[in-house]
Amino acid sequence: MTILRQPTRAGVRDAAEKLARVVPPTPLYTAEIRGRTVFLKAESLQPMGAFKLRGAWHRLTALDEGQRRRGVVAFSSGNHAQGVAWAAKRLGIAATIVMPADAPRAKREGTLALGAEVVAYDRATQSREAIAAALAEARGAVLVPSFDDPWIIEGQGSCGVEAAAQMQALGVGAPVQAVVPCGGGGLAAGMALALPEARITVVEPEGWDDMRRSLEAGWIEPVGDAPPPTACDALQTPRVSPLTFDVLARRGAEGLAVSEAAIGRAQAWAAERLRLVIEPGGAVALAAVLTGQVAPADGTLVVLSGGNVDLAAYARALAAAGTA
Amino acid sequence: MTILRQPTRAGVRDAAEKLARVVPPTPLYTAEIRGRTVFLKAESLQPMGAFKLRGAWHRLTALDEGQRRRGVVAFSSGNHAQGVAWAAKRLGIAATIVMPADAPRAKREGTLALGAEVVAYDRATQSREAIAAALAEARGAVLVPSFDDPWIIEGQGSCGVEAAAQMQALGVGAPVQAVVPCGGGGLAAGMALALPEARITVVEPEGWDDMRRSLEAGWIEPVGDAPPPTACDALQTPRVSPLTFDVLARRGAEGLAVSEAAIGRAQAWAAERLRLVIEPGGAVALAAVLTGQVAPADGTLVVLSGGNVDLAAYARALAAAGTA
Repeated sequence: MTILRQPTRAGVRDAAEKLARVVPPTPLYTAEIRGRTVFLKAESLQPMGAFKLRGAWHRLTALDEGQRRRGVVAFSSGNHAQGVAWAAKRLGIAATIVMPADAPRAKREGTLALGAEVVAYDRATQSREAIAAALAEARGAVLVPSFDDPWIIEGQGSCGVEAAAQMQALGVGAPVQAVVPCGGGGLAAGMALALPEARITVVEPEGWDDMRRSLEAGWIEPVGDAPPPTACDALQTPRVSPLTFDVLARRGAEGLAVSEAAIGRAQAWAAERLRLVIEPGGAVALAAVLTGQVAPADGTLVVLSGGNVDLAAYARALAAAGTA
Repeated sequence: MTILRQPTRAGVRDAAEKLARVVPPTPLYTAEIRGRTVFLKAESLQPMGAFKLRGAWHRLTALDEGQRRRGVVAFSSGNHAQGVAWAAKRLGIAATIVMPADAPRAKREGTLALGAEVVAYDRATQSREAIAAALAEARGAVLVPSFDDPWIIEGQGSCGVEAAAQMQALGVGAPVQAVVPCGGGGLAAGMALALPEARITVVEPEGWDDMRRSLEAGWIEPVGDAPPPTACDALQTPRVSPLTFDVLARRGAEGLAVSEAAIGRAQAWAAERLRLVIEPGGAVALAAVLTGQVAPADGTLVVLSGGNVDLAAYARALAAAGTA
């Protein structure tokens, strides 16, 4: 893919202005964790259940008339799918989404309900990139990547602009630290651009911590050959992108990995304390703070990035956390 | 207890103005259910997880200086407890709450976290009314009933004023129907006062449908001798009050009962579609609409009244709903 430009802070601000015209800010919760006053940004309460509509909206509104007519194609395990479908529906653009056959039912149904065409593929044997590229080529459609794209990164960063404004309104000043779930790094890179004064910490599930290893190495390290199973369907990216890595590396971001058990306990905490359903991938940053792997400060911002769960798996996670 | 006055629509409006100064409106969701556009009021997202802070705030702000100094006493399975504790904490009033020993842990811990003193009693052998009355007498404190009180009813009604304003802002006009969970009937009566044009439907768990039977009979009928077990800890009121019954009877409200299975499925629907944790008692109105026991209209308002769950029970309900 040709990289047209780098994502910028000005682009993030532009995205935030565009988003503010179509969706209200997601709630920001205040909680006392490990003796510190922490702020929790509930992106799970976006209309399609995750932050992903931010990047999709910023990208799709930047398409010209001809591009809009030919439609868009995306590949995604579910949240980016629904983000693109949500934005496309509002703009009257046809959307085709390539999704793994084993994506959570709620994500597949949510994507269909938003009017997108869904093309299923087998995660083990087929390449979603190849399928999506072939579809885009055949239709003359624009491929909308889930993180490897300057508009997507800038759009996700609008979450940081919004949270900073909410914290300012509460009289607590700007976030001193942002703890962010990381798959391909689109949200994390966007937050880093949005919050130039904050310390940036990205969190991944154990065994899928390629961004952590990349940031430590100073170059992009892919996920190992046989990563362990994880409940975080949204964070199973085999390799981050130069765009997201570069933004985070330049900011001196640090990464860390949390256990599946800690993720389940974070989901349970959010259910009991905030009455919010948070998906595993959306709970990793909270897990890092609850376990103390990230020592929170007063003014730490934690992103709860999504809430689209597989119901049976969610019930098992809560039950396990309750008895642990 | 001496009934000082009847609750009024003017009182509801006053309560709504008072509430608007201390908490933001809870989100109002739009959903397509059975082909109709239905509005769902997420009271589970109140700071203490249920609508109950509304009535408590309206009541406690009406106390005079001497009463505030002597403190308040309440009895509650948990949500009213937290509502009173929340309001008392903000007003610097000492609160003592009489709670059943088997109340959900999250509700007990939430009440303690809000600074209230908790006195436990055995639901099977002790009278919470007697314990609370003795405590109030000994301390000269004001007893704050959970529904049998004009301020409490008016305060809960602020939920209806708020929802109507939100629907107006969406350009869909006032609610044509309000479907409301019912324990003692405080919320339902308040909604009936708030929404004089709306059809009022109150929903109870099967076997605990004393308000339904009372409305049909034209006089107050208590719950039967051996009501079945229900997951709706918040709706296990043995008898409604003349205050709530009279408001609802004068409005021609109708009642209906939903099954425990339907309640669990409604909790699962809310988790998957809205990413909200709704407690069993908070999901009964949604259950009635999802099953079709209430045929929704365009403009039906459904109250999701609370989200304080027992985690293990919640996990079981979701698991059962997912496999049913």
